[in-house]
Amino acid sequence: MSIRPLYDRVVVKRIEAQRTTASGIVIPDTASEKPEQGEVIATGNGRRLQDGTQVPLEVKIGDQVLFGKYAGQTVKLNGEELLVLREEDILGVVESSDARLKKVA
Amino acid sequence: MSIRPLYDRVVVKRIEAQRTTASGIVIPDTASEKPEQGEVIATGNGRRLQDGTQVPLEVKIGDQVLFGKYAGQTVKLNGEELLVLREEDILGVVESSDARLKKVA
Amino acid sequence: MSIRPLYDRVVVKRIEAQRTTASGIVIPDTASEKPEQGEVIATGNGRRLQDGTQVPLEVKIGDQVLFGKYAGQTVKLNGEELLVLREEDILGVVESSDARLKKVA
Amino acid sequence: MSIRPLYDRVVVKRIEAQRTTASGIVIPDTASEKPEQGEVIATGNGRRLQDGTQVPLEVKIGDQVLFGKYAGQTVKLNGEELLVLREEDILGVVESSDARLKKVA
Amino acid sequence: MSIRPLYDRVVVKRIEAQRTTASGIVIPDTASEKPEQGEVIATGNGRRLQDGTQVPLEVKIGDQVLFGKYAGQTVKLNGEELLVLREEDILGVVESSDARLKKVA
Amino acid sequence: MSIRPLYDRVVVKRIEAQRTTASGIVIPDTASEKPEQGEVIATGNGRRLQDGTQVPLEVKIGDQVLFGKYAGQTVKLNGEELLVLREEDILGVVESSDARLKKVA
Amino acid sequence: MSIRPLYDRVVVKRIEAQRTTASGIVIPDTASEKPEQGEVIATGNGRRLQDGTQVPLEVKIGDQVLFGKYAGQTVKLNGEELLVLREEDILGVVESSDARLKKVA
Repeated sequence: MSIRPLYDRVVVKRIEAQRTTASGIVIPDTASEKPEQGEVIATGNGRRLQDGTQVPLEVKIGDQVLFGKYAGQTVKLNGEELLVLREEDILGVVESSDARLKKVA
Repeated sequence: MSIRPLYDRVVVKRIEAQRTTASGIVIPDTASEKPEQGEVIATGNGRRLQDGTQVPLEVKIGDQVLFGKYAGQTVKLNGEELLVLREEDILGVVESSDARLKKVA
Repeated sequence: MSIRPLYDRVVVKRIEAQRTTASGIVIPDTASEKPEQGEVIATGNGRRLQDGTQVPLEVKIGDQVLFGKYAGQTVKLNGEELLVLREEDILGVVESSDARLKKVA
Repeated sequence: MSIRPLYDRVVVKRIEAQRTTASGIVIPDTASEKPEQGEVIATGNGRRLQDGTQVPLEVKIGDQVLFGKYAGQTVKLNGEELLVLREEDILGVVESSDARLKKVA
Repeated sequence: MSIRPLYDRVVVKRIEAQRTTASGIVIPDTASEKPEQGEVIATGNGRRLQDGTQVPLEVKIGDQVLFGKYAGQTVKLNGEELLVLREEDILGVVESSDARLKKVA
Repeated sequence: MSIRPLYDRVVVKRIEAQRTTASGIVIPDTASEKPEQGEVIATGNGRRLQDGTQVPLEVKIGDQVLFGKYAGQTVKLNGEELLVLREEDILGVVESSDARLKKVA
Repeated sequence: MSIRPLYDRVVVKRIEAQRTTASGIVIPDTASEKPEQGEVIATGNGRRLQDGTQVPLEVKIGDQVLFGKYAGQTVKLNGEELLVLREEDILGVVESSDARLKKVA
């Protein structure tokens, strides 16, 4: 089973950064309000313009994205927690140096 | 009797997942605030654009959709509880592997 | 006397379902917050678009419509309570099987 | 002296229905929150569209209109209380059977 | 010195009606919440439309206008209190019978 | 160093009127909530329209402008307090008689 | 790793001005609510217009910008705190005299 989001929504799988202090203490989720990171696993067909056409999204499947901690709605599918966001809740796409190298090559 | 929703509204029949813990305790509805799943049983003719035309909806009858627990309004018809939602309250369409196979075939 | 609603408004006459439990106890209005049903008895000429034209409404006189309990404003005319709603407050049109048969015939 | 309302505003003179119970007790204004009725005595030149043109209003001078009790702003002119409303605050136009006859004739 | 208002703003000089009861008691300002009257002494060049053009205002210098008691912002210039309003805060223009006669002549 | 404001923003240098009563008592800022006056020292390139073009502002560098006491955001640059406003927060431009003479000449 | 912001967002690296009083006391961040300064290190492709096209931003990489203290969302990348802002939260671009000289030359 998979989710096909509508219009300008995307489905994101969170990447839970290991929240551990230097001394090894694990910080519970509610104690750190940083933006979250995740991987886009599905995108909608794009926002509907006022003339009825749809514009494709800027993010695409596989993108590593940053978003606010309280953005979107959590959905559980096949026992896995996913997040359904609107594209405008996405702050940016994280590009690794590798990704850049690929573009150069 | 049936409901014909207007414009960008859809009528959804909830699929009540069995809310039971591993040890068999049934969780009452108010204790679980996850998004809900349902089947679209009727759709409106589409949102009205500013030039007066209507654009058809992205969801169609038979789609399994996800939506927020408090989205829409409950309607009772023929003793059956239905939900009338705006299409923008729908988070996404659940596609089973079977559905995908059908598309391939 | 009758009311001619403006633009995208409609006048609806409520159909008060008999609110009685199986054991015969009558439930007062404030105890049941279900959507209401009514019959459209007058419609406006349609919503005004941004270019000045008006688009006719999707509902028409005689339609059995569903609406939220607190939608619209109650108006008393000739001793009869009527409801003036905007069309977007209407959840859907109830179609009986008879209505469908008529369409087929 | 008279008031010329701007754009989509209209000036309405309330018709104060005699608020008296069967036993002759006069009900003060604050105790009855029904919509009010009035006669349009002046109208603006119409709402300004986004392209700068103005569309004439649907109501015209002499119309008996219904409006919410708290709509508009009261203005005192020549010792007379008038109400300045936006057209969208008007629920509908009351048409007497006489008015209809005139149209037929 | 004078104020040139921008876009859809107008500068109005209040006409303070003598607030005195029949028995000669002067009513302080805060005790009477009626709309106010004033004379337009300057107008902006008009509201900017979405295509960049400006549409001239409906009110003009010399108009006697009505407005809500709390509309606009008071400005003190040359020791004189003036009011800067948006045109949409103006309820209407008061036309004296004289003004009408002038139009006829 | 100077600030170049974006789009419809302007940079204003306040003109602090001497707030002194007749008897010589200096009134502290927080005790007088009149609109403020200032001189425009930089303007943005204009508001972006929906078709992507920019319309130039109505105010220009050197204009003496009036604005609400709490409008805009204070910025400190080179030890000098400046105010960054949106153009729509400007109530009007103060024109001295001298300015008018210059226009005539 | 770097962040590629979407649409009208920009990534800014704060320039923390040394907040020290004349007598050498360091003022903690929460005690000074002045706008902040930073350098733009990445920009989105521009705001999407209603016809689907994108207009490039007015700010560009390298610009020294001013913004409100509570604007945007903080993101931590490679141990470095960055700020993701919408362009409309930027008050203006700080131009040093050097920058001007370069333009002249």
